[in-house]
Amino acid sequence: MKIAMIGLGKMGINLTENLIRNDHEVWAYDLDESAKAQATVLGATVLTALEDVLALPKPRLIWLMLPAGPATKNTIQQLSQLLAPADIVIDGGNSDYKDSIEDNQTLQAQGIHFFDVGTSGGMSGANRDGNFMIGGDSEATFATIEPIFQDIATKDGYLYTGAAGSGHYLKMVHNGIEYGMMQSIAEGFDVLAHSEFDYDNEAVAKVWANGSVIRGWLMELAESAFSKDPKLDALKGVMHSSGEGKWTIGEGLRLEVPTPVIALALMMRYRSLETDTFTGKVVAALRNEFGGHAVDKQQEA
Amino acid sequence: MKIAMIGLGKMGINLTENLIRNDHEVWAYDLDESAKAQATVLGATVLTALEDVLALPKPRLIWLMLPAGPATKNTIQQLSQLLAPADIVIDGGNSDYKDSIEDNQTLQAQGIHFFDVGTSGGMSGANRDGNFMIGGDSEATFATIEPIFQDIATKDGYLYTGAAGSGHYLKMVHNGIEYGMMQSIAEGFDVLAHSEFDYDNEAVAKVWANGSVIRGWLMELAESAFSKDPKLDALKGVMHSSGEGKWTIGEGLRLEVPTPVIALALMMRYRSLETDTFTGKVVAALRNEFGGHAVDKQQEA
Repeated sequence: MKIAMIGLGKMGINLTENLIRNDHEVWAYDLDESAKAQATVLGATVLTALEDVLALPKPRLIWLMLPAGPATKNTIQQLSQLLAPADIVIDGGNSDYKDSIEDNQTLQAQGIHFFDVGTSGGMSGANRDGNFMIGGDSEATFATIEPIFQDIATKDGYLYTGAAGSGHYLKMVHNGIEYGMMQSIAEGFDVLAHSEFDYDNEAVAKVWANGSVIRGWLMELAESAFSKDPKLDALKGVMHSSGEGKWTIGEGLRLEVPTPVIALALMMRYRSLETDTFTGKVVAALRNEFGGHAVDKQQEA
Repeated sequence: MKIAMIGLGKMGINLTENLIRNDHEVWAYDLDESAKAQATVLGATVLTALEDVLALPKPRLIWLMLPAGPATKNTIQQLSQLLAPADIVIDGGNSDYKDSIEDNQTLQAQGIHFFDVGTSGGMSGANRDGNFMIGGDSEATFATIEPIFQDIATKDGYLYTGAAGSGHYLKMVHNGIEYGMMQSIAEGFDVLAHSEFDYDNEAVAKVWANGSVIRGWLMELAESAFSKDPKLDALKGVMHSSGEGKWTIGEGLRLEVPTPVIALALMMRYRSLETDTFTGKVVAALRNEFGGHAVDKQQEA
C-alpha cells in the first residue's frame, strides 16, 4: 500500500524501513533534513511539506510517528483541514489515550477515519517483527489496513482493540506494567550486587533469560547491557520516564483501582532524579528534634 | 550417569522423566507408594529405603527434591551419616540459602560434596529444558556432574555460581523478582478490567506475549490462564507465597538494600489472605474520631 509516514525519528525511520522491506510504498516527511535524507536512502519518496500528502491516492493513509502532545495534536488539526472523507490517519506515537479520543472526534467530524496505534518492541520492533495495539471506531476500515500490520508485526503481534483510544490505553497500561517489571528486576540485581556471593551479572541475566520463570525480553536486554558494561559503571542510576507510567497511575486513581507496585516503581523513578531530598531533610530534622539523633549537615561553601 | 532421586513430588517426578529421557539411570525414592509406582512406569529403579542409595556406584550421586526445611535438612543429616567421602549430594529444592550453607558444612565435615541447585521453569521446565542455578564449593566436582545439566537444562539454562549457598541465593532473588513482575502484570490487567474499554484478556496477553517489551513466559502463562477462564471467575484472588519472596526482602533488610517493589508485592500477597483487616478498622475508627466520618459496622449475628 501507499503510506505517508510523518515523523522520521527513531521509531518512524525504523517503521519506514520495515514498511519498505515489506513492499509498501512510503512517502516520508519530517522537518529535519538529515532524517529525510536517511529515508531517501531507504527508498522512501520524500515530501517537502505536509500538504504533499494530498498527492496520495484516495483514500489516503497517513501514519504519524511524532512526539506525543502538541506535535501530534497540531499535525492532526492540520490534517483534519487538509484531508478528505474516508482518508485514514494513524497515530502510532505514545499519545495519551484521552488525546486520542479527542483527535478521533476532530477527524471524525470531517469524515476521516482515525486509528490510535500503540507501538511496542522498541526500535528493533519498529524495524522488524513489531508489536501494535490498535484502537479505532471502524472495524471495517481497520480490515482495509490490516494487511500492513500482518506485514510489519511479528506473528500474533497486533491486536485490534475496538473503540478509538483503546489502542493507546492498552499501550499505556503495557508501559505501566513495564515500570513495575523493570524496577523488580533491578532490585533483584541490586540485592545480588550487595550479597556476599560473587555473581557475574551478565551470566545471571543469561541463565535467567533461558528457561527460568522470569525469562523474557527485558532479561535478554539486561544480558545485553551487562555484556557491554558488567557493573554498569558508565551509567548514572537516573531513571527518566516519559508519561505512560504516570498516566497508568492516573487511571488507577481515577478508577480507584489499587496499583501499588506500578505506582511505587514510578515514585522510585522520581526519587532517582533527586540527589538530595527534602523528605530526607524533614525526617532527619524530626529525628533530631525528638531524639537528638545526629544529622548530616550541608558542607559550608 | 546413575542418580538417586529422593522426593518424587511434582518437581522430582518430572526431573526423573527428564533424566531418563536423557539416558541417565534413576534410582527413585519417596515415602509415597503411588509416586514410586509412577517412577517405575517412567523407567526408574525404585528404592525401598533411603539406605538403598548405598548400592549406587561410588562416588554416589544423590539428588534431593524435597520440600524445603525439615524434610530436606533431616535427609541431609541422615545422608551425612550414610555416605562416604567424595559422594555428591544435590539439593534441588527451594531451600533457604542459609540452610544450604549449613548443609554444606554438615556434609563437608564427612568429605561429601554438596551442591545447592535452584530449579526454575516450573514443572514443565523440570520435565524438559529446565533452568538450574548451581552453587557448590568445588568447581572441579561440578565439572563431573555438569554433563547432567547439559542434558536436562535448556540451552544456556544452567549456571555454576560459585560457593555453596550461591545457587539457592540466586533462586531466592529470582523468585523475589518474580513477585514484583507478577504483581505488576496483574495490576495492569486490573486497570484494563475496570476501564471503559472492552478488552479480551486472552487476546491482550497474547499480543503482549508477541513482540512487546513485556513479553516473556509469565505473559504466555497469563494467555494460557485467560484462555481457560477469560475473567478468572473460577478463582479467588488469594495469593499464597512459599518463602523466597520473604527471604529476598529479608536480604534487602539485612544488607540495607532498598527493595520497595518486591517488598510491596509480598505485602499485597499478605493482604490478599485477609478478608477484612485490622488496619482498615483502625483507619475507619480514627476517621470517625476526628471527623465523624461514617464507618461500616459489622453485621449483628
